[in-house]
Amino acid sequence: MRFETLNKYVLKCPRCGFETEASPYIMRCPKCGELLDALLIADKVKLRWNELRGRGVWRYRDLLPEPNSIVSIGEGATPLIRLRSHGNAYIKFEGTNPTGSFKDRGMTIGVSLASSIGVKGVIVASTGNTAASAAAYSARAGLNCIVVLPKGGVAKGKLGQAILHGASIVDIPGTFDNALEYVLDTVLINGSADHINYYPLNSINPWRLEGQKTIAYEVFEEVGVPDYVFVPVGNGGNIYAIWKGFRELMEHGMIDHVPKMIGVQASGAAPMVRYWNGAGEAKIENPRTIASAIRIGKPVNWFRAYRAVKYSGGAFIEVSDDEIIRAQAMLGKEGIGVEPASAASLAGYLKALGEGLIGPSDKAVLIATGHALKDPDALLMGNANMISISSINELRNLVMGNAIA
Amino acid sequence: MRFETLNKYVLKCPRCGFETEASPYIMRCPKCGELLDALLIADKVKLRWNELRGRGVWRYRDLLPEPNSIVSIGEGATPLIRLRSHGNAYIKFEGTNPTGSFKDRGMTIGVSLASSIGVKGVIVASTGNTAASAAAYSARAGLNCIVVLPKGGVAKGKLGQAILHGASIVDIPGTFDNALEYVLDTVLINGSADHINYYPLNSINPWRLEGQKTIAYEVFEEVGVPDYVFVPVGNGGNIYAIWKGFRELMEHGMIDHVPKMIGVQASGAAPMVRYWNGAGEAKIENPRTIASAIRIGKPVNWFRAYRAVKYSGGAFIEVSDDEIIRAQAMLGKEGIGVEPASAASLAGYLKALGEGLIGPSDKAVLIATGHALKDPDALLMGNANMISISSINELRNLVMGNAIA
Repeated sequence: MRFETLNKYVLKCPRCGFETEASPYIMRCPKCGELLDALLIADKVKLRWNELRGRGVWRYRDLLPEPNSIVSIGEGATPLIRLRSHGNAYIKFEGTNPTGSFKDRGMTIGVSLASSIGVKGVIVASTGNTAASAAAYSARAGLNCIVVLPKGGVAKGKLGQAILHGASIVDIPGTFDNALEYVLDTVLINGSADHINYYPLNSINPWRLEGQKTIAYEVFEEVGVPDYVFVPVGNGGNIYAIWKGFRELMEHGMIDHVPKMIGVQASGAAPMVRYWNGAGEAKIENPRTIASAIRIGKPVNWFRAYRAVKYSGGAFIEVSDDEIIRAQAMLGKEGIGVEPASAASLAGYLKALGEGLIGPSDKAVLIATGHALKDPDALLMGNANMISISSINELRNLVMGNAIA
Repeated sequence: MRFETLNKYVLKCPRCGFETEASPYIMRCPKCGELLDALLIADKVKLRWNELRGRGVWRYRDLLPEPNSIVSIGEGATPLIRLRSHGNAYIKFEGTNPTGSFKDRGMTIGVSLASSIGVKGVIVASTGNTAASAAAYSARAGLNCIVVLPKGGVAKGKLGQAILHGASIVDIPGTFDNALEYVLDTVLINGSADHINYYPLNSINPWRLEGQKTIAYEVFEEVGVPDYVFVPVGNGGNIYAIWKGFRELMEHGMIDHVPKMIGVQASGAAPMVRYWNGAGEAKIENPRTIASAIRIGKPVNWFRAYRAVKYSGGAFIEVSDDEIIRAQAMLGKEGIGVEPASAASLAGYLKALGEGLIGPSDKAVLIATGHALKDPDALLMGNANMISISSINELRNLVMGNAIA
């Protein structure tokens, strides 16, 4: 069966070179088991960059799958905000996506595809943001949605979103890594999902990543090619997707180099840093960090993330939870409200600046992956400057007496 | 003192006709006490609609105050999403603004102005969204921020945002109406705020409303002039601002009529409906509704809201908390996550459709004012479809056995 929607793509194994016609179902290489890359076939792409129209992800449809019917809630077109306090950096604020995280960029592609191939629903394992996004987009498409979550490991806002959008919420004991194992064991047979009525939309799915790559296109349209892009790394899909976006711009002659990709992990959940430093496999047990969105010990896209960093000349670095919390507060003082995981990119940038790995004039883009409102409990733990009063005179004294710092 | 920033405006009293040069400080008419309108002076406006550039609020700078330095976090440019389930309606999803509500549109103007006139900080009373927005924008501008909140009456996400962005949080006993009274009594003398170092940014401030009117411009750019615009009404500033935006388009020859403005209130907090029906003043004591963002009994902008509805040929209507909750869930099933107050506009639309006040083919825009994540507790109270499992086989049975509805 041919899928017209995907006919400008080929699926290729980055490890053994196996190639096959694009299909929405095939995720892993049937020869060696590696996750397959969805690659654009150059002469099937009609890129009319000067004629881009509209806003957000689908502005770049020349470089995307083209489903007959598009399931969209207005994702993408997020602000790029100059950091006032340090260096030459911009925050790409993905918290302004419809469900409050970058996941919406991929989900609009993934659910449009699911809808066009006629499945009953979609299924994802999630630390929360993927669940919220899958629930919203599948609701819009009229598809069922099953989200598999680590019990007690999901921030309150995200759980509330999955409820609001009517997902079936399945919780399991253990971590996100276990949840993903549950899902993959259920939906993939020999690397393919064609036997099942629930379409898997974790980041093993290369089509979801096609949506996420549009972050690169938007950054390019606003500030050209930065020297560095800092990305919080959990399961490893997003850093690969952004790198892929820049690489495609290069392949189509739009730019002559790609930015160095810097993957930032929390110290307690840093399997990629471990692997990068030659200290063993990209796997750790019992990942721990306050940043629940990147609390992942066995990144399924580890080889994708590794290639993005390696081939771009970047690095993996780690930051402590304290550094993450400080960076979140610092962004708050810049007027930008992000969840803890998002602040990892600023924490990593400050660390790289401090250690002289990059210079203060190097242009850096820091990906802020999700909104502060995703994790309200993390906000309420912050240092609050609260004053209770019971008369107008007290307020007058406060304001006039300059008693407020 | 002249304010160049505002030199295309005049301040005019809509009740007694008093006029004065535009100033950021003067809010009430010194003759009769009514809130002053900030009106564009036609021959000082250079409107180049075909040359609009950029995204969001400042795309419309020809029709806005022009401070020297703009304090922006990428507000505006929100999605307009077709409602699938009913009639001919579009949701203007303001939850994708940087702090998750439409307040950001006004705050970028208000805080830019505050910054340019050199005050120490800003002050607002708030049900929560204004606090979150004022806190973020003043943080970005390096200004202090005092937010005055009704104790226990603010949704958790919004309080967390005020903390994150470093506001001084003052809580008082009573309702939002009391909080606003505290602030106005503290900052205004004879209707002006020029004696104080904290600039008031409640919706009495006409400059904040100038930002909010850009909702009308964006709607016009996407779908022309709708037949109806449904707006949740709390303090009454937003419905006036949107109407003013359309009216300005008419005054500049862009359109030949304005949409009918429908103000929607929660039954337990419906002073405008009371006034509209001739049942007394636009004031009630002890407003009650689950929709905390419109839990307001004494709308300070009641005369502005009244004029918008009256002169556009619209109406004020009320909906019950049950209707609001059902509308929130219905939007959830459309993939759009809003806080309860935002769902009032859909609840009002459905009521108007049901009662035949409007027809199913009339084009309606429903303003969804804030994001679902603003009020996570309201989400967690929803009907959750939760299943706990502890083995992969159980998941397999669930998925294969189609046990999930």
